[in-house]
Amino acid sequence: MSPKQSGRRGFLKNSAALIGAAVGAIPAAADQPMSDNMESKDIKELIAYGERSHFVKSIRFPVAERMSPDDFGMTFHVVSPIQDQVGIITPSSLHYIATHRGSYVPDIDPSEHRLMIHGMVDRPLVFTMDELKRLPSVSRIHFIECIGNRAKPSHKTAEETHGMTSCSEWTGVLLSLLLKEAGVQKGASWVVAEGAETVKGATTIPLDKAMDDCMVCYGQNGEAVRPQQGYPLRLLVPGFEGIHNIKYLRRIKVVDQYYMTYNDYGHINADARVAALGTQLGPKSIITFPSGGQKLLGPGFYEITGLAWSGGGAVKSVEISTDGGQSWKAAEFRSPCYPMAHARFGFNWKWDGKECVLMSRCIDELGTVQPTRAEIGKYWNKPVDKDFQVPGADNSVFPWRIASDGSVHNGLA
Amino acid sequence: MSPKQSGRRGFLKNSAALIGAAVGAIPAAADQPMSDNMESKDIKELIAYGERSHFVKSIRFPVAERMSPDDFGMTFHVVSPIQDQVGIITPSSLHYIATHRGSYVPDIDPSEHRLMIHGMVDRPLVFTMDELKRLPSVSRIHFIECIGNRAKPSHKTAEETHGMTSCSEWTGVLLSLLLKEAGVQKGASWVVAEGAETVKGATTIPLDKAMDDCMVCYGQNGEAVRPQQGYPLRLLVPGFEGIHNIKYLRRIKVVDQYYMTYNDYGHINADARVAALGTQLGPKSIITFPSGGQKLLGPGFYEITGLAWSGGGAVKSVEISTDGGQSWKAAEFRSPCYPMAHARFGFNWKWDGKECVLMSRCIDELGTVQPTRAEIGKYWNKPVDKDFQVPGADNSVFPWRIASDGSVHNGLA
Repeated sequence: MSPKQSGRRGFLKNSAALIGAAVGAIPAAADQPMSDNMESKDIKELIAYGERSHFVKSIRFPVAERMSPDDFGMTFHVVSPIQDQVGIITPSSLHYIATHRGSYVPDIDPSEHRLMIHGMVDRPLVFTMDELKRLPSVSRIHFIECIGNRAKPSHKTAEETHGMTSCSEWTGVLLSLLLKEAGVQKGASWVVAEGAETVKGATTIPLDKAMDDCMVCYGQNGEAVRPQQGYPLRLLVPGFEGIHNIKYLRRIKVVDQYYMTYNDYGHINADARVAALGTQLGPKSIITFPSGGQKLLGPGFYEITGLAWSGGGAVKSVEISTDGGQSWKAAEFRSPCYPMAHARFGFNWKWDGKECVLMSRCIDELGTVQPTRAEIGKYWNKPVDKDFQVPGADNSVFPWRIASDGSVHNGLA
Repeated sequence: MSPKQSGRRGFLKNSAALIGAAVGAIPAAADQPMSDNMESKDIKELIAYGERSHFVKSIRFPVAERMSPDDFGMTFHVVSPIQDQVGIITPSSLHYIATHRGSYVPDIDPSEHRLMIHGMVDRPLVFTMDELKRLPSVSRIHFIECIGNRAKPSHKTAEETHGMTSCSEWTGVLLSLLLKEAGVQKGASWVVAEGAETVKGATTIPLDKAMDDCMVCYGQNGEAVRPQQGYPLRLLVPGFEGIHNIKYLRRIKVVDQYYMTYNDYGHINADARVAALGTQLGPKSIITFPSGGQKLLGPGFYEITGLAWSGGGAVKSVEISTDGGQSWKAAEFRSPCYPMAHARFGFNWKWDGKECVLMSRCIDELGTVQPTRAEIGKYWNKPVDKDFQVPGADNSVFPWRIASDGSVHNGLA
């Protein structure tokens, strides 16, 4: 639309012509084809359980180069196409997957599955799934993030740099309810949680956390937890590193010391500071539009949007820099902000067509500010170059470089 | 567990032995079978876009008796298995479907789809899907409910009585943003919204509502709106009767009077009171456990749980009666309560094994209390018997009758 046509009010009046073509003579809106796609599939099947449009192509893919259809290896990471997602709920079919037990998913019959609470308790208990579902439940929106969710200079897209975090509505029983019923004995200080895979997934978490907000979940986004996410039962440890959220949960043992488990590749560390960093995730954020692999069509108005989250609570604010971190301005929230959940932010931006670097940073309700790589390097007294790897969980501010042709590139490259 | 074993604390100490079997000698938790279900399917396909467990059987079904696989008719209602759902998000694959245009779903290529804003505006506009997605977005959790969502004495289960309401995280552009940009002219008072099906779905809504919280949605639960829900674009009119939420949205015309449309079977009514009732939905609730077709295994502890919602705003409180409406006690919330969204409630209950009638009632933030059928009958001066049909939208309190054998029955039958 020309400036002359822009009027008394309106958010878009200074925007590029790209947004909302003005129509002089209003064209008749063309009839959409009414092709009979419900008969080309099995209509009964699509009524029973619907599918997405065949025009929607967003998929997950495994990250490690060495993975082939014949050899997925034991370290199996599948990233979520975070740049395609809208809102804060990750579709269950697109939730990231991370496991160190290969690509195999246990095929668990829920009628056979049991959860045992034992160890330093007065009354050891075994629950069936039906028994767990009869107990008072809670439903909360929480993210899960893998500690391996870190950008490397070789990464091209947001799913590669930040695709190992996902957010769902989780439903289940508070672990504290089960532990109170079992009767935790004096002197207990940790719990060990174990999954039912052949190679047991296990983790040790502080008793204080277990009695706070941990959930024993049978529901994800309104239906049963998906097999790739731990069907029929998953432990949720809100805000802690992903590996603590034990899939196929079958056993909780109350103990009086830290237990080393198969999962402890990252926690038992000669440097206690590194070990501590591996537990509660710090504030973090990623711009999903514009992001790597996308292209701006020319100067003009764009909404910068993305996700922010923190293991320390709810996101309090998000700030955007369009000049490589020299200055920061507050973004707006496009969703509510729940504790330990993704929050969707937006920032109205007019691109002048020149090369620039976009960054986002998250400030959580504890007041913790997402750090820059420079700040982290200073803390660890290490030079911050391309090869600098943030120790522990990497929640550093991430840069996207916009080239003058509108193409978007990893700012670490 | 025996009373002697129950200890100093614990929610369950007075509960039936059904919950949490005590274990004297702790049995070894059996290894779960590690069958290779990811290879029995196409592993690449399951990595790209995951599926639910084959043990999960919850499906939707069409409600009208006359519907057969060969003749679904034009009035096509598919209920959501609300009794199987947990939390407040309805899985997109299980969202209810209601249409008066048969079972056919338009197969719309999003690159061809347009939204036109015209009529009494200064600047008529046409948007492509890409243009809409570049605008500032919002993501909000809202329910949609069909006015046909009403219990009949012949219904057996909660999906039959109340399965035509569903709740999603919707993402899109506020309609007010588009209307402000187009420039609404003086004297305008209504907007007509139209879909792209061969038989146009259309609705007339007050301009005040259009400028308040209506959304032009391209996202549902983190991905594209599903075809059965209006892919690629759906109008959301939070809290209004389902039929206003136009699927396959292609046109918004700003006008100065109410327009009669194909959808107006319920709104143009000789009785203005009936017409008024058809717009904003009142407070409503349904107990999903225990509900029709389920069976209690014997006296003891149960959590009564269900969903409450209102077109008038957020749910403020939910009350439960276990004596057929003689007395009411406050339920607890098991989820946050968002405006015009499902809220999950729970109520701890000990069944004494005698026949009884369970009811729930919702009170919304306006202070409106979900009415009983008796109250509605008194208002309309009609006898309240089995054949009494609530005029307009039926948000009456619904009874489940628990027989002494634990079986659950429709209290209207």
